Amino acid sequence: MNLNRNLPTGTRDKLFREAQTAYKIEQQVNQYFGKRGFKRIETPIIEFADVFSSENQADTKMYRFFDEKGRLTVLRPDMTLPIGRVVSTTGVTLPLKLSYSGKIFRANDDFGGEQNEQTQAGIEIIGYPSIKAEIECILSGIGVLNALEIPNFQIELGHAAIYRRVVHLLNLSETAEIDFRLLIQNKSLTGIQQFVENNPSTLDAFILALPRLFGPANTILPQAKKLTKDKGILTALTEIETIVAAVSYTADINVDLGLVQDFHYYTGIIFRGYADLAADNFLSGGRYDHLLEQFTTSSSPAVGLALNLDSLTNLQNRAGIIQKQAATTLLIHYDLAALPEAEQLMKRTPNSELSFFEEPSNAISFAKKWKIPRVVHVSTEGTKTIFAKEARE
Amino acid sequence: MNLNRNLPTGTRDKLFREAQTAYKIEQQVNQYFGKRGFKRIETPIIEFADVFSSENQADTKMYRFFDEKGRLTVLRPDMTLPIGRVVSTTGVTLPLKLSYSGKIFRANDDFGGEQNEQTQAGIEIIGYPSIKAEIECILSGIGVLNALEIPNFQIELGHAAIYRRVVHLLNLSETAEIDFRLLIQNKSLTGIQQFVENNPSTLDAFILALPRLFGPANTILPQAKKLTKDKGILTALTEIETIVAAVSYTADINVDLGLVQDFHYYTGIIFRGYADLAADNFLSGGRYDHLLEQFTTSSSPAVGLALNLDSLTNLQNRAGIIQKQAATTLLIHYDLAALPEAEQLMKRTPNSELSFFEEPSNAISFAKKWKIPRVVHVSTEGTKTIFAKEARE
Repeated sequence: MNLNRNLPTGTRDKLFREAQTAYKIEQQVNQYFGKRGFKRIETPIIEFADVFSSENQADTKMYRFFDEKGRLTVLRPDMTLPIGRVVSTTGVTLPLKLSYSGKIFRANDDFGGEQNEQTQAGIEIIGYPSIKAEIECILSGIGVLNALEIPNFQIELGHAAIYRRVVHLLNLSETAEIDFRLLIQNKSLTGIQQFVENNPSTLDAFILALPRLFGPANTILPQAKKLTKDKGILTALTEIETIVAAVSYTADINVDLGLVQDFHYYTGIIFRGYADLAADNFLSGGRYDHLLEQFTTSSSPAVGLALNLDSLTNLQNRAGIIQKQAATTLLIHYDLAALPEAEQLMKRTPNSELSFFEEPSNAISFAKKWKIPRVVHVSTEGTKTIFAKEARE
Repeated sequence: MNLNRNLPTGTRDKLFREAQTAYKIEQQVNQYFGKRGFKRIETPIIEFADVFSSENQADTKMYRFFDEKGRLTVLRPDMTLPIGRVVSTTGVTLPLKLSYSGKIFRANDDFGGEQNEQTQAGIEIIGYPSIKAEIECILSGIGVLNALEIPNFQIELGHAAIYRRVVHLLNLSETAEIDFRLLIQNKSLTGIQQFVENNPSTLDAFILALPRLFGPANTILPQAKKLTKDKGILTALTEIETIVAAVSYTADINVDLGLVQDFHYYTGIIFRGYADLAADNFLSGGRYDHLLEQFTTSSSPAVGLALNLDSLTNLQNRAGIIQKQAATTLLIHYDLAALPEAEQLMKRTPNSELSFFEEPSNAISFAKKWKIPRVVHVSTEGTKTIFAKEARE
């Protein structure tokens, strides 16, 4: 007898309705992407660590182990890099619209309470330089949230070029960049003030304001434009403006100019989803035009969107959205000799089940316990009702 | 630039139709189990190695690594043991019918060409001692294969008690048992002759015949009964006989009295599926009445069925069964200002897609290349057809 009943950090079991809801959501999301013309791709959970080498310095902790030949192997922390690997190495014709769903893994420690094994679904639009690719990702994200009836969500837009531009102009060392990234992510007003004092530049006013530059696009973007004359940043702001104007008919869109994604490969527009009922971030994505260069000499523009389906399952639960599960309405007890007839009856009766008890009395007790309203006994002589719940008004 | 484009041993990518077919099959199988009244369960891919300790001596090679606290962790090689863990430790009410689908992992080396990352689906019927539980597993397996239109398959029945009884009566050492298991699995006539000479017993005639005791139940079972007077074995043969009689109306059922499963936890009836078009084994299962004892003091009878969905996907391909994928029939080019109208048009037109090219000419070239018969341009002034493939007879 083994008493170790615990599960590894950040993993959990899903049972019955929760498992069914999670599975249903995955199907709904994939169906939605399919309808928009995305083609499915599936890559292995196990990949060589090299695929994620651009993330080795990032905040993403990975599960690592050696394979039978001593090669460093990881459980994928993300689907974007594996898809980049496939697209770069298989000679598929671009442009391309791909969708996926599956498990991803992050080796977070105990403290955060984060899910180390997550179900993720998403899309990758590869080979389109137009902002129509960003727009499709944002519309698809909004479409999925609407299809799942997620209430009161918001999409927040930022731009990776803003952060990149600051790091570049200030010529930050790797350590200084990590510090700066944390300050920006935490919207630390005093930390950033200190940082600007230590790293004075023409961007001072803009950097100092960054932690407060989030909210409705039509108030934040004009404010931000007044704070800098840097062409790179101004171009990024215009891009955000154009996209907000295009998609704001469909959902509540905000901007956050201090938005920095955990994955470092983003180069352009980035976005996230928030909801009143969710503490975590269930939707994120953006443009990453240089990702494929990791795998090949040629480059391709690309935009992706990823959804955390576990968070969406929780969101549905909290919102009181219950995915219906059909209750059993007929339990079929049978004699072995009458199995063909019993199976036929089951096949033509929706929400019926065969009983696996030897004795009819056990089948009846089971039906009473689980509120199954009717039990029949199928024998070679025919089918008899042996239990029926009295109809009540 | 990174040139390591290979994948770990036994893993592969699935693209487009293959990925779509694999996903469709998983949905069909789950839907079928759902219709038979099974409730979904999902357990993590990462588990503590202890959960599989009963398999540590078995042939199953597992991916192992240490978690952040130095605890030995594995990628599950199987779903039955994790479900045993859940049922034993969460206090769910038995009896219970569970279904699952997901990835399992076996760390096979390069030589066999086996898939190390497999998609498996299956059912577990827990708490029913009746052979009706075995019958349900076999019927469900057959039902799934029929639903997937797998041609010319056979189900083969054996009984774990036959092998167990021989090992027990001959009082084999652990090493001798491993040798004997291999001889039986390989149906090695000369090896078994040698074995019987070295291990004489009252079962000699039966053991010598074992490698040939497979085929139609009505010829094999009477032969086998004449070869032994051992009550344990005779009881097992009668059980096989009863089940074959009950389910033979629905598919081609054979017996293989020398059948031994890779997993060691089986105690009763065991079964496998074979097909003309498949080299590997895509369906297996059986009764394991003591499995839960690994996790708890109490015991529960249980029967399970597992399907290798990757093998079933291959089988469908080889059988020429093509899961239909809708082709795009309308490509919608749009001006940014007309995005709401373009999205509306897409939503109400089946098999339509938005185009992400800036220029209408690129959308038209794309449509020609991928044989999309029509392209429209949606602007604030309305919708115009800008390309239409000529109708041909």
